Amino acid sequence: MSEVHAARRSQLRDRCAVGRAAVLVSHPANVRYLAGGAPRGATLLLGPAEDVLLCPAAPSGDPAEGRIGEDLRLLVLPAPGDDSVVAAGGLAAAAGAETLAVEEHHLTVARHRALGAAAPRLRLSDLGCAVEQQRLIKDDEEIACLRIGAEIADQALGELLESILVGRTERHLALELERRLVDHGADGPAFPTSVAAGPHSGAHGHLPTDRRVEEGDFLCVCLGANYRGYRCELGRTFVIGSTPATWQIELYDLVFAAQRAGREALAPGAAYRDVDRAARQILDAAGYGDQLAPFTGHGVGLENDEDPQLSPGAMGKLDACVPVTVGPGVHLPGRGGVRIDDTLVVRPEADGGPELLTITTKELLAL
Amino acid sequence: MSEVHAARRSQLRDRCAVGRAAVLVSHPANVRYLAGGAPRGATLLLGPAEDVLLCPAAPSGDPAEGRIGEDLRLLVLPAPGDDSVVAAGGLAAAAGAETLAVEEHHLTVARHRALGAAAPRLRLSDLGCAVEQQRLIKDDEEIACLRIGAEIADQALGELLESILVGRTERHLALELERRLVDHGADGPAFPTSVAAGPHSGAHGHLPTDRRVEEGDFLCVCLGANYRGYRCELGRTFVIGSTPATWQIELYDLVFAAQRAGREALAPGAAYRDVDRAARQILDAAGYGDQLAPFTGHGVGLENDEDPQLSPGAMGKLDACVPVTVGPGVHLPGRGGVRIDDTLVVRPEADGGPELLTITTKELLAL
Repeated sequence: MSEVHAARRSQLRDRCAVGRAAVLVSHPANVRYLAGGAPRGATLLLGPAEDVLLCPAAPSGDPAEGRIGEDLRLLVLPAPGDDSVVAAGGLAAAAGAETLAVEEHHLTVARHRALGAAAPRLRLSDLGCAVEQQRLIKDDEEIACLRIGAEIADQALGELLESILVGRTERHLALELERRLVDHGADGPAFPTSVAAGPHSGAHGHLPTDRRVEEGDFLCVCLGANYRGYRCELGRTFVIGSTPATWQIELYDLVFAAQRAGREALAPGAAYRDVDRAARQILDAAGYGDQLAPFTGHGVGLENDEDPQLSPGAMGKLDACVPVTVGPGVHLPGRGGVRIDDTLVVRPEADGGPELLTITTKELLAL
Repeated sequence: MSEVHAARRSQLRDRCAVGRAAVLVSHPANVRYLAGGAPRGATLLLGPAEDVLLCPAAPSGDPAEGRIGEDLRLLVLPAPGDDSVVAAGGLAAAAGAETLAVEEHHLTVARHRALGAAAPRLRLSDLGCAVEQQRLIKDDEEIACLRIGAEIADQALGELLESILVGRTERHLALELERRLVDHGADGPAFPTSVAAGPHSGAHGHLPTDRRVEEGDFLCVCLGANYRGYRCELGRTFVIGSTPATWQIELYDLVFAAQRAGREALAPGAAYRDVDRAARQILDAAGYGDQLAPFTGHGVGLENDEDPQLSPGAMGKLDACVPVTVGPGVHLPGRGGVRIDDTLVVRPEADGGPELLTITTKELLAL
């Protein structure tokens, strides 16, 4: 793995760390992407002479030296409380850097000022989202991690559906799903598992409450596995009881149609906003336009919610090997609603089109 | 509750928002402390004329208007993606504020710049940790929440100890503890539950792995309940099997003596560093000084790890009604170790001295 990370650092360096310019990466997912691991509070410096991962002093135990490639030096800071960002500034200046590009969207004003004070001759510039951009297109190994994560999420959800749901609280179901994710090999949930019953169903990002599942409810579940840092997403809606009501069937069919349209719009070269529109216009035409989430899907990878955003205002086009979610939903206040969410990898038509990672059925199951 | 939050805002306003100075609070725990709730991405403005809680546009569902007191206006931003910090700057300028104090330790450089661009005539200053300082001393209601949280953590741990532990993984035990916390009424875990078996035991903040509990292990558990936002902490160490080894008994007794010394040093007026030293010097004298965590305890409240820090370099003195943890530990690389951690509230001698919230026994149990 360490060659992969070295190659990623080379690529970033070629774009951003030319001559006497150094780069300081502090956003944890970006550090992990470039260094293979991100101990808490660690900062990665691509300096004029060498790459250094600066880690806060560990009270006990060794930092994960095994994860560090040969061309990446690990520096554990001497004193507890030392800020790795400030230390990296000093190191960059000592190594002869003239400018240092930092992640202004991650560094706080206070840390940025401390960095400036520690290395006053260093000109600080903004790296912007250069690393996030580089992370957009995933390699085979990254996609394999997402694929395994999706399998785990499918398994966890499948097992839950075999158990009795009526009478159990949203909180309990969410915790059980998270336990099952770990049982099947996940490092943990990819994000806080959402279970939304009855009037809560269909609400985006609903956090589980003590509401118990009742006969006749819509039940929305959204979960994902974190597998080696990669975070997939799977959302499904079920009906509790033997026969769904007519409004439930109609609403489900509508959201399903919107979600399918979004999935079918995924292709290399497709504009982000066109994918969003494909799903959104179906819900809009049915009169739900005002209540929709600002996006119908988003990228996944080392973060659950990363670029690209599939939204009406998004600029840019999809590439092959970009994993995204397609997860529109409708929530009717007081009644509930439907949300259907998959993780897919954009692939060219010649390769069979978008690769569906989350394969749990999207038929409306009555449980 | 809303009068409590209004009184907190008045107090902050009296200190920091004099005349044409406005205050912008963005750190979520601080927003919650002052407004009673902190929807994701919300910002609190104490303006020249009124207090406003600015919340990002919700795709569906209503913001929690019920939590907002009469003297706090709720403003939901019009467009998805609007930054509440930037919007608050515009609002403050429109209301005639000349300066705006922001939390530079929380705002990123990028958001700070966007705020400056949106309200160019507003002079931005640093609020520093004024709200964190105000949060140090807890009122009765806050302490009641911590007390209930501690009871929940005690219950969850007590139940786990009645089950069979050998052969189960750290991850499983951690998940089971978190499920039990929620069963007993917690809103969730206060922080990621730490379960450390065998060679992992004693390491500060160890994250659970697939290591299974074995006969003869030390087993360290550190958990806490989040109850209405308040986060207690409870850490205990056990021996797996019928009879602990001599080195285990000796190490346990040592850490226990250190932890007791720390607890006994808690008193109004005691210097933070003296509490730390009381615990630390016992471990230091036994030859473990180099391997200790940088602090032996810390404040708890709306954040798990808040001021004060009980460390050798900390400046300041304890007050009554400040809840802190006392949790020293020793980790012997390759062998494991011991950690014992309580949450207590500092009380004067006349009131019976420090109030212990986490009452699980600290005898060395062999399970």
